[in-house]
Amino acid sequence: MQRLSRFVPSSSRRVTGLKDALWSGSLTFQHALSTSAADENTSGRKFASYTVFKGKAALSMHPILPSFSKLESGGSRVNKNGSVMLTFFPAIGQRKYDYSKKQLFALSPTEVGSLISLGPAESCEFFHDPSMKSSHEGQVKKSLSITPLGNDSGYFLNITVLNNLQKTTERLSLPITKAEFAVMRTALSFALPHILGWDQALTTHHPSPSASKPRVERPHPDSEWER
Amino acid sequence: MQRLSRFVPSSSRRVTGLKDALWSGSLTFQHALSTSAADENTSGRKFASYTVFKGKAALSMHPILPSFSKLESGGSRVNKNGSVMLTFFPAIGQRKYDYSKKQLFALSPTEVGSLISLGPAESCEFFHDPSMKSSHEGQVKKSLSITPLGNDSGYFLNITVLNNLQKTTERLSLPITKAEFAVMRTALSFALPHILGWDQALTTHHPSPSASKPRVERPHPDSEWER
Amino acid sequence: MQRLSRFVPSSSRRVTGLKDALWSGSLTFQHALSTSAADENTSGRKFASYTVFKGKAALSMHPILPSFSKLESGGSRVNKNGSVMLTFFPAIGQRKYDYSKKQLFALSPTEVGSLISLGPAESCEFFHDPSMKSSHEGQVKKSLSITPLGNDSGYFLNITVLNNLQKTTERLSLPITKAEFAVMRTALSFALPHILGWDQALTTHHPSPSASKPRVERPHPDSEWER
Amino acid sequence: MQRLSRFVPSSSRRVTGLKDALWSGSLTFQHALSTSAADENTSGRKFASYTVFKGKAALSMHPILPSFSKLESGGSRVNKNGSVMLTFFPAIGQRKYDYSKKQLFALSPTEVGSLISLGPAESCEFFHDPSMKSSHEGQVKKSLSITPLGNDSGYFLNITVLNNLQKTTERLSLPITKAEFAVMRTALSFALPHILGWDQALTTHHPSPSASKPRVERPHPDSEWER
Repeated sequence: MQRLSRFVPSSSRRVTGLKDALWSGSLTFQHALSTSAADENTSGRKFASYTVFKGKAALSMHPILPSFSKLESGGSRVNKNGSVMLTFFPAIGQRKYDYSKKQLFALSPTEVGSLISLGPAESCEFFHDPSMKSSHEGQVKKSLSITPLGNDSGYFLNITVLNNLQKTTERLSLPITKAEFAVMRTALSFALPHILGWDQALTTHHPSPSASKPRVERPHPDSEWER
Repeated sequence: MQRLSRFVPSSSRRVTGLKDALWSGSLTFQHALSTSAADENTSGRKFASYTVFKGKAALSMHPILPSFSKLESGGSRVNKNGSVMLTFFPAIGQRKYDYSKKQLFALSPTEVGSLISLGPAESCEFFHDPSMKSSHEGQVKKSLSITPLGNDSGYFLNITVLNNLQKTTERLSLPITKAEFAVMRTALSFALPHILGWDQALTTHHPSPSASKPRVERPHPDSEWER
Repeated sequence: MQRLSRFVPSSSRRVTGLKDALWSGSLTFQHALSTSAADENTSGRKFASYTVFKGKAALSMHPILPSFSKLESGGSRVNKNGSVMLTFFPAIGQRKYDYSKKQLFALSPTEVGSLISLGPAESCEFFHDPSMKSSHEGQVKKSLSITPLGNDSGYFLNITVLNNLQKTTERLSLPITKAEFAVMRTALSFALPHILGWDQALTTHHPSPSASKPRVERPHPDSEWER
Repeated sequence: MQRLSRFVPSSSRRVTGLKDALWSGSLTFQHALSTSAADENTSGRKFASYTVFKGKAALSMHPILPSFSKLESGGSRVNKNGSVMLTFFPAIGQRKYDYSKKQLFALSPTEVGSLISLGPAESCEFFHDPSMKSSHEGQVKKSLSITPLGNDSGYFLNITVLNNLQKTTERLSLPITKAEFAVMRTALSFALPHILGWDQALTTHHPSPSASKPRVERPHPDSEWER
């Protein structure tokens, strides 16, 4: 539960950008990953994120791979899609953040699709309930809203966590500039086929086809007629 | 011929989305792949899809790799382009689907191009005839139409299979939200160079060039003058 | 110098497309590649293209890799950018094409940039002179023009080869639908970083960093200050 | 500190392009890379750039990989984001450039986001201060501005380096056509996930999952609830 007390603010600023007294950091936020890394078998795994630091909160995002399960045929298939994890954490002073107060929100593939297709004046909101299929349904509710800052200058992200048992509501929010959202959109668009496992489905693991050993033919596209 | 009787509906919803009482699922649809996997040599192959579940039908899509044939030179070339297979299957109750009643439609590269360049108010329609070059031409006709839902909120997909011999017409259709179409567009755009084999054509299989062993030069772009 | 006498026309058609009596083929055009493959060391190389067949001519495009040269440091760098080769060849009958009458045009990275950024109502034209820096400059001139078909329905491609010595002018042209151009744009956008060699520059060939053997640090971005 | 005295101008030109007496070269600019290559352990590394030559200056850009540090878990994580280095150098005669007078500017991920989301009529400007956190802060200031040429025909890039100690101001600028900017945008969009390390985070280094040896499960997206 360490606190971040130092980071290097970027000296770059967008001339056509916000007038607000925002500052943004381009440092990679390490602690966001080290915590979750402790939970799993990460030997050989690599972690990467994109983090923006703002006056009242910071946001880090990192991709999570899909998992595959073995098929009887010897191949494997996706049994759980990956996601893109958003981590929000509050500022507790000038350029100081408390990572122990983080709030997590895992974007599903369709939620990623919603973000990357968001028009400059459009909003979207996602609702997650961790206990949805249990008797605790509705006790805790998370929502993430993304609303335009206006003038095509970016978006305002807000996460709200409502706990009906503890009677608490936690809220973290921060503005994202157009440039930062372009990074998010590009990284999310890149991640999307990967969290669906399409990159692996589209990679040949066979050696080059050999003339001597005829391979079993893949079904013709017209196998759409097979039924 | 199993039926899907359970899946987890996503709790996310787009605020600016449809007012319709639609629900969508983000579960990976396993059975769509296990069936086709049974037909081929899948050792080491990986399967991945993207599936949306709606009130009257579900749609799953997964990419199919191109196949290569050996050249005398030792290299190989695409002898059949890959495709993206769309699988439609009907709902037979609340959140229950009958995968045995599936209808398949394999998108060619150009049909993929049509989908990914579709404007928010544009439609397209594809016609497939499995017996096109035989005496049975015209006996069975498939068509897939994609029409806008209006207000840039997504598209309506409809597959119709007309069997002139059996005097039957089967039809499955479902709405696709803007966010879901963004996933499809991104996954299709990612898949397109792969189903054409360009990713493999653009990968060097040579080790790093060595100074001692001069490689045969690749033809200069001006080899366009060679003719 | 074989002729193509058979291919399978696609049964797909775009409802909002051209009214012209165009037909398009989605067959992979093999011969376009086998000829050039004969010229080089293709062991292990893979070839892929995208080909459209129209009433008066066909067009095939395939990517050509950059070449690298060894550096003294042990690394290597691009010494010649790759390109995307366009091959035009005329129809000599219904669905018959004469590949021996082909005309080649190799798109440079910047020309690829021009194509992929072309607006629906914009045109562009490229001029190539194979003898540009020799005494024969101007004897042969090639030009490729791309002009809109109108109504955002695609482009008309025209290649003209003017030979001042032989007093001949050869011209091949064909319409490209919006869907086909979307395939070209997507494949060209995918190819662009590869023909510049950026995919290889952005791939780590090092094993995972080890704690025991500290690696030489890569220069900090602020090495922009090193001068 | 060599000078470039020869290169091959491209014979291609955009018909709808600028009327200016600009010329552009598509040669790969080697020296931009060999210099920086000398500073680091480049064994096995590959270098690639994109360079445009104009009347008064040239601009080369090349990507720089992120660096990873080892985690106790055995995995690794990004400890410094990569960047895209811009190198400007002045013309000192017709088609002659002095690379020793180069000015460097390393684009951070967010600055890359700013560039790739730039509208046809928008500008942006970045400020870098190499001594920002030291007592020398403000002594040297670099700025890079990107302003539209008008009529959607490209952008004008200008780098200014102000040295308050030496009382000098150096300035290099050049126009970038729409086609060249499309190459830059495509290459930068491709590079962005890589300089954040997302391509490596999204690559499985595990062998195919085996049925016999159950792997530790990756956290469920709903691990967003773990806190």
